[in-house]
This record gives sequence, structure tokens and C-alpha cells, in this order.
Amino acid sequence: MKKGQTIRVIQYGLGPIGAATARLVTERSELQLVGAVDIDPAKVGRDVGDVASMGMNTGIRVCERLSDLDSTARADVVLHTTSSFFPTFMDQIAEILGFGCDVVSTSEELAFPWLANREAAERLSKIAKKAKKTVLGTGVNPGFLMDSLPLFLTGICQRVDRIEAMRAINASLRRGPFQAKIGSGLSLEEFEERMRSGRMGHIGLPESIGMCFDTLGRPLDRYTSSVEPIVADRRIRTDHFVVEKGQVRGLHQTAQGFSDGAEFVRLVFIAALDWSENHDEIRIRGVPDLEVRLSGTNGDLATVAIAVNAIQRVIDAPPGLMTMRDLPPVVCGG
Amino acid sequence: MKKGQTIRVIQYGLGPIGAATARLVTERSELQLVGAVDIDPAKVGRDVGDVASMGMNTGIRVCERLSDLDSTARADVVLHTTSSFFPTFMDQIAEILGFGCDVVSTSEELAFPWLANREAAERLSKIAKKAKKTVLGTGVNPGFLMDSLPLFLTGICQRVDRIEAMRAINASLRRGPFQAKIGSGLSLEEFEERMRSGRMGHIGLPESIGMCFDTLGRPLDRYTSSVEPIVADRRIRTDHFVVEKGQVRGLHQTAQGFSDGAEFVRLVFIAALDWSENHDEIRIRGVPDLEVRLSGTNGDLATVAIAVNAIQRVIDAPPGLMTMRDLPPVVCGG
Repeated sequence: MKKGQTIRVIQYGLGPIGAATARLVTERSELQLVGAVDIDPAKVGRDVGDVASMGMNTGIRVCERLSDLDSTARADVVLHTTSSFFPTFMDQIAEILGFGCDVVSTSEELAFPWLANREAAERLSKIAKKAKKTVLGTGVNPGFLMDSLPLFLTGICQRVDRIEAMRAINASLRRGPFQAKIGSGLSLEEFEERMRSGRMGHIGLPESIGMCFDTLGRPLDRYTSSVEPIVADRRIRTDHFVVEKGQVRGLHQTAQGFSDGAEFVRLVFIAALDWSENHDEIRIRGVPDLEVRLSGTNGDLATVAIAVNAIQRVIDAPPGLMTMRDLPPVVCGG
Repeated sequence: MKKGQTIRVIQYGLGPIGAATARLVTERSELQLVGAVDIDPAKVGRDVGDVASMGMNTGIRVCERLSDLDSTARADVVLHTTSSFFPTFMDQIAEILGFGCDVVSTSEELAFPWLANREAAERLSKIAKKAKKTVLGTGVNPGFLMDSLPLFLTGICQRVDRIEAMRAINASLRRGPFQAKIGSGLSLEEFEERMRSGRMGHIGLPESIGMCFDTLGRPLDRYTSSVEPIVADRRIRTDHFVVEKGQVRGLHQTAQGFSDGAEFVRLVFIAALDWSENHDEIRIRGVPDLEVRLSGTNGDLATVAIAVNAIQRVIDAPPGLMTMRDLPPVVCGG
């Protein structure tokens, strides 16, 4: 399609992120929302303007399945914001491609699937190429802060010896589901129990490490990761939680990738209620050494932005499974 | 050419930046230096390893003209580091394209020529496309800090109202020619005289403003710029200069681009001997507001890095005149 033409968008998934991407689509003159999909019976059949709190009726009813959409909803691209994990989203993405649309997805495991999920990535890439369509996984983290941005910064380095990225989030400033996700209000035993069942911690660090190693041509010898609880030393009250002294107020997560026996990438993710820091840091050791500090990178706002901003790039991209290191810079409104 | 093949590089221009890019090329296993060009009679005929202080002989003699190179020097790409200005480099780039090579240039006016030099840019683009070759202008500033990096950051913004970038350089830490370029040791009268003849100030702010406006789809209604001297309030001694109290120790430069009557981009460049700050700041007002602070972005090291790092991207790029906003992220070593 030509630049300047309106791009027709279907919103697939109407959780908090999907509702926000749908709202942003309706605010962009170059984009037109033409359909919405969500499996939640409480949402199916309602106007997406109502479900996504747009303050207006759009005339677009939420469908349970992509195949339920009218033929009038034929779209150029689907904004996909459902599950983080391949076993759930794989068939959804394949179905979208069969529908003849490009895909921008916020699924964390799609941000760089070539390391942690190579086989599934190859399968998906093949399906996309056959459909002559593009799939992009993006978001602020993974997709930006701990991978494509550090990589972009290495452009001004003659040599890179080590990359360190740290994200510190004062979760008191974030929405309730985020506060819950980091373990707020759990006992230490409950936290450990969730850890053991693999349901605790930020998703996406292996994807970020994979993108850094692969793009810089380093072999990844070893990957380690850990998640530790951060415990309240006094009662904390937010709009969503009351956390007693001794209960969990957040988590401290580290992922390391090693090359040639030495740590090459270290990612640290800290999110806790009343955490004193709320910023990101990237340190690159090499020639020159770089230190970058970012403030204001609100995860929800930023993920919604980058997903919608990526639409034009995905429309312009060649077919296949792309990641943020493969495309020209995604910029606001374009 | 295929990924993994050695890329054959000619170095065109052996000033301080060109000597350093030539050195970095010889350090990269994927690159091979195969020729060197400089018009300086003091350099012509000597081994480039000697001219560029590589601490070794390369067997490559510096030629005065591109056409003097042996046929054995047939190369894939030319690293072009001569003049900042179109009237000087236009014929050089055209000659390189005629020679059948891609071009990576550090010429400031090439970083984004579509605004300040549109006609020449269109001519050059046509020549490049006809030759089926790619031309890229890059560097740390213009090319990165005040244009492609802020643009990359807008990727996580839902809306951008205003962009501000500030670069502060303690010039005491930089080489002699840089200290001279910013007016060190001049009287105020001499500074004003040089200003009037257009020989004072950082080159590239119009290019950075042009890239920001054009990429974000904003019309540029008005462009203003100013250069003010920074005067020493005490005697300053560096390895290269003694600046007396009352003499110039540097400059403070501002460029502003307006859209719809309001300032949309403001760039501030400060470089002075013994300046207390030595970092970069990018502020984006919008949703969300972003503040980014960078340390370590040494101009010489960074420009050399990004020029050499861009080679692979230029080899892979489609024919024509490209700028940093058109290509996937340039990363270290790739």
C-alpha cells in the first residue's frame, strides 16, 4: 500500500494494553480501527468504544473470533495483544496471517524468538513469508529498553566489551494488575511457591539477551537468571494493595549472558512498591564507555506507543518474522 | 554481496577522522582496507599505515586521486571523510559512485541533505540510483545525538509536542584542532569577524532539525540559529592553547525549528575550554515525557565508530541517498 493511504487496523485482545492501543489507533489520522476481537464473554458483542473506554461509540462490535468479523472489516494490520507465550499465541498469529494481514504483537516471546524459541520462530517465519505478510514483536521491554536501544547505542562504539541495562520501577505509580504481577502482598512462602511454578517475574529477559548477542554476533555460551523477592520493612498502602511488614512488595530479577567465559550482557529488572528509583540505565563498556540514564519510560504508555508507531514500518517491511533490530527506527506517528 | 564475505574498503581523506576510520577498518576482521586517497602532497605516496599511525606498513600507498588507485584496489565501499560542504564533496561522491562503490561519508551536510540542500540531494540520489549504489551520511552529530537518537526515542511516545537536545563539551579534553574550531584564544572582535564570514560554529544543526521535522511529518515554518562566544574569566591553559582572561574559550550555539507557530525542536551546542559539563541531554515533551542523559559520547571516537559500523548496513541497503533514519539500527561491528 502507498504512503499516505489510511491503514485499516484490527485490535486483537482488549486487556488494558489492547484497550489502550485501540484508543491510540482512533486518535491517529493515518489509522482506522475496523475490527476488534476478544474471547472474554463480558466484552463480546459490545461496542469497542465502550469496552476500551473511548468515550464514544465506534459502531464496531467486539467479536469472539477473527473469523466472526464482517468482510467489511478486511484490514491491513492486526494489533495483537493477547498472551506472552508461544503455545497460546502461535495459532492466533498463524490465523491472522491466513486472514491476509500484517501483525504487530506485544507478545514478549515474539520480541526476539530466535534464541529461546527458534523452532517455533522458523515455523512462524515460513508461514509469514508464504502469506507475503510481516510479523513484528515489539514493546518497551522486551523490544526497546534492554535490547534495541542498547544496540542502537553501540552504533557509536568502536568496540563493545560488556552491556548492562537496569530498569527500576516504583510500582506504586503503576496499575493494580502490575502491582499484583510483581508479588505485592504475598508471603515469602507464596512468592517461593509461585516462583517454583514459573509464574513470577518479568517476561522477556531471555528475548532481550538473545537480540543483543545475535545482533552483535556473539555466541551465547551460558544464560543464567534469578528472581528474588523484595520484602516490605513497614506497612505500604497503594490504591490497590495493603502490604504488611514482612510481606513481599516487589521483585529483583537478574539475567546474565556469557560469551567466551565472561559476562557480556547483564540485565537487571527491579519493580517494587514505594521503590525509591524509577528510571532506566544502560552502561556500555568499550570504546568509548557510554552511560545513559532515562526517565519517564512508563511501561504501559510506552508499549502502547511503540506498538501503534510500528504499524507503518511493518506495512513497509518485507515479508517474514521481524524484530526491532531488523527495521528502520520506529518513530512517533509514523 | 553475501553476509560473511570480507568487505573491501577505500579510505578517502586522511585527516584526523579519516586516519582513525582507516585504523579501525584494519582492526575489523570483516573489513579489508584496499586503498587510500588524500590530496595532501605530504601524504601522497606514503604507506597509509605510516600516514594514519597504524604502527605497521600496510603495503597500501596513499594516492592523490581515486583514479590513481590500481585496479587491484577495486573496492565495495569508500569511507569518505573530506569536506563538510556540498560544493566540495559533491564531485567526489559522484566520482566514487562512478567507480562502482557504495559510500559512507562523515560530511555533515550529507547527514540529512533533504532540507538545507534538497536540489543537490536529489541530483546525488539520482546518480546513486543510476549507479545502483548507496550513499549514507553519518556521524555522531549530525547523524546520531541530535537526530536519529531522539527520533528512535520517540518510538515509545504516543505523542510528541517538543524535542530538545543539548550537547555540552568540555573542549579541554579534546584535540587541538577542535579547540581552535570553537574559537579558543580569539579576541571578541576576531570571533565576530569569523562569525560574519560564516566560519564559526558547529556544522550540522540544520541537518539534524531537518531530519527530525521530516521524519515526524511536521512542516518546518521557520528556522533560526545563533552563535555566541563564551569568554574566559581567567587564564586557561591546555596542551594546545593559552587563553587569557577576556579572550574566547568556546561557543554557545542554538538552533530552533518552528511548526504551527511554536518551537518544535531546539538544539543547543556548547563547547568551551574548562566547561564544567561534558554530557548530552535529550528531552521529549509529549506522552510520556522522556528525559535522557548520555555520558561518554566522545565526538571523535563516536564518529569514527558509527562511520565504520555503518558499512555493513550500506552494503545491504537499496540504492540511493540514505540517511540514518532510513536504515535498520547501525550497531557495533555489524
